[in-house]
Amino acid sequence: MNNYGESNGDSNVHEKQVEGHDHCENGDGSDNRVILGIDGGTTSTVCVCIPLFSSSKSLPNPTPILGRAVSGCSNHNSVGVTVHVSYPTETAARGTLEEVMAEALSKSGSDWSAVHAVCLGVSGVNHPTDQERILNWLREIFPSHVKLYVQNDAVAALASGTMGKLHGCVLIAGTGCISYGFAEDGREARASGAGPVLGDWGSGYGIAAKALTAVIRAHDGRGPQTMLTNKILKALSLSSPDELIGWTYADPSWARIAALVPEVVSCAEACDQVATKILVDAVQDLALSVKAVVQRLHLCGEDGNGSFPVVMVGGVLEANRTWDIGKEVMKCIQEQFPGAHPIRPQVEPAVGAALLAWNFLMKESTGNSHS
Amino acid sequence: MNNYGESNGDSNVHEKQVEGHDHCENGDGSDNRVILGIDGGTTSTVCVCIPLFSSSKSLPNPTPILGRAVSGCSNHNSVGVTVHVSYPTETAARGTLEEVMAEALSKSGSDWSAVHAVCLGVSGVNHPTDQERILNWLREIFPSHVKLYVQNDAVAALASGTMGKLHGCVLIAGTGCISYGFAEDGREARASGAGPVLGDWGSGYGIAAKALTAVIRAHDGRGPQTMLTNKILKALSLSSPDELIGWTYADPSWARIAALVPEVVSCAEACDQVATKILVDAVQDLALSVKAVVQRLHLCGEDGNGSFPVVMVGGVLEANRTWDIGKEVMKCIQEQFPGAHPIRPQVEPAVGAALLAWNFLMKESTGNSHS
Repeated sequence: MNNYGESNGDSNVHEKQVEGHDHCENGDGSDNRVILGIDGGTTSTVCVCIPLFSSSKSLPNPTPILGRAVSGCSNHNSVGVTVHVSYPTETAARGTLEEVMAEALSKSGSDWSAVHAVCLGVSGVNHPTDQERILNWLREIFPSHVKLYVQNDAVAALASGTMGKLHGCVLIAGTGCISYGFAEDGREARASGAGPVLGDWGSGYGIAAKALTAVIRAHDGRGPQTMLTNKILKALSLSSPDELIGWTYADPSWARIAALVPEVVSCAEACDQVATKILVDAVQDLALSVKAVVQRLHLCGEDGNGSFPVVMVGGVLEANRTWDIGKEVMKCIQEQFPGAHPIRPQVEPAVGAALLAWNFLMKESTGNSHS
Repeated sequence: MNNYGESNGDSNVHEKQVEGHDHCENGDGSDNRVILGIDGGTTSTVCVCIPLFSSSKSLPNPTPILGRAVSGCSNHNSVGVTVHVSYPTETAARGTLEEVMAEALSKSGSDWSAVHAVCLGVSGVNHPTDQERILNWLREIFPSHVKLYVQNDAVAALASGTMGKLHGCVLIAGTGCISYGFAEDGREARASGAGPVLGDWGSGYGIAAKALTAVIRAHDGRGPQTMLTNKILKALSLSSPDELIGWTYADPSWARIAALVPEVVSCAEACDQVATKILVDAVQDLALSVKAVVQRLHLCGEDGNGSFPVVMVGGVLEANRTWDIGKEVMKCIQEQFPGAHPIRPQVEPAVGAALLAWNFLMKESTGNSHS
């Protein structure tokens, strides 16, 4: 796996003293050095600061959070989203990123000089060029000994469920959807995550767009009548399906459409057949994304029964309804791969990013000690 | 049918002499008065000027075109498109409209005072408020005796196939798709035409988006391998399916995606199963749009075998390929409604709009003579 870590040629960072900073042990295996984990989402940026634990100790659970800060969007160039919402300029995005890190450090009673590693999970990072560009921002902020990692937000989400270990598959289904997996040997694969034009039908946007379409089809005689009509019109305070067309295109935000998922779930819970079919299809689509990754990485082992985690993230998969999309997706995956076991992360993606940085550091440190 | 005609209370316009304009007969049943037909599309505006034939004569075929002019987009507010391309401001759109009419009149050797009626077909006109707004533009340009009509562009397209008569169903499948029908008694109905978010899967955009999705799915392991991959990557000069994501969202134009339809047809002609399924599904979707309209208007008569025209318009339906989408759509419609007979218009939509105006005038004139 190319983790796009950046050591600036310093292979012994872990033993290097930062000038003017005293790395005394705190009695719990940590010194004063810290790791920053950042979740650069499409609507907000979250930064957490955790202590740097020495490699000899296992990571305490729950992970101690020294400080946490939230700011606006730092995601300058998110695939599939750029054309649909107003994004900050690169300068503004960098400013946001720097601010949120400064605030998290300040809340931690720490400062820039204590930072030993930074991991930033960003949605829409798909190409090395995206990662390189963001790494360059971080390089301008931090001195050369600080370890810098930039990852797709799905990787940070996986880490949030596995305490930083990159093994298994994560399925994110919020406004968009993606599945992303890692084998023990570092091979990685993804499926879906190509945005609504390119068939992310299991996403919140995909589910809601299908529901809106069903209302239009019932109205113009192409499809069966459905409870979705009244439910959605009421939710949007519209009086006729004709008005849905204007509503749909009046605002380009995908999240606004995805927000209708609860209406679809309600109709399915009331046994509406159209709504039920939409959810059943979404379940198949989401499960297929995971299965494709599992198959490509052979996560299930030779006999197909091998154990691996499936980290479930995002509003669509939340288990707070009778019609439980996440549970149905897992059932569908387990029919083919009985060793798949679901994990719902107990920590947020920013903490996942911090844990990821810690794991990268430990690996590099182990690698160094063996060399 | 509410045709949004505007007579300004003048019920005897046909016999009214325009001041300073001599309506001498030309020997072919026309005088010097003219009708303007305008097709206000999403990419350009076409205006044609035809002579006003008296009601006692049938319309000559082919329709004599006195002048024709083409200009930029005059479509200020097109549903489903506003958020995706740069549209002119209302002032610019009005300016374009006025210019293209002036040019068509000038080429006809005519002038504003000769205009007896204007019919403007505009895509995305779905609500009386849209029509009223555009009528107001025209009212400011023309004196009160000029008859003004504003219609959805689908209505003008129907008229282009029926020589102005509003009976039957039109199916337009270009970048978008819509079906629109009229019964003899004036009842009207439409289906589809709600844009790509709301399930216009038979449109050029819909077909191409499904093809792009199939390439992504083949690439990430969710779908079968398909010839579409090489065909589309070659057409777009891309080297990997990963690059399709960036390509798709780099430009918000729907027409750019719809332009890939010929690649899909080529793959289907080479018996690629994935491409074939996409086209078969599109055929079903398009036929369903027409069937829904036919059923709601009872165009097929009591016994289901009644004769009615289906006017076929747009690039997707053009009969220039072995895999002929338009032909398959008609077959599918005729399985249910054997009386459906296809018409491929011999004149452009702007002429359809002019013929529509002529038909409205004749109806009103007949109505007046009977009153």
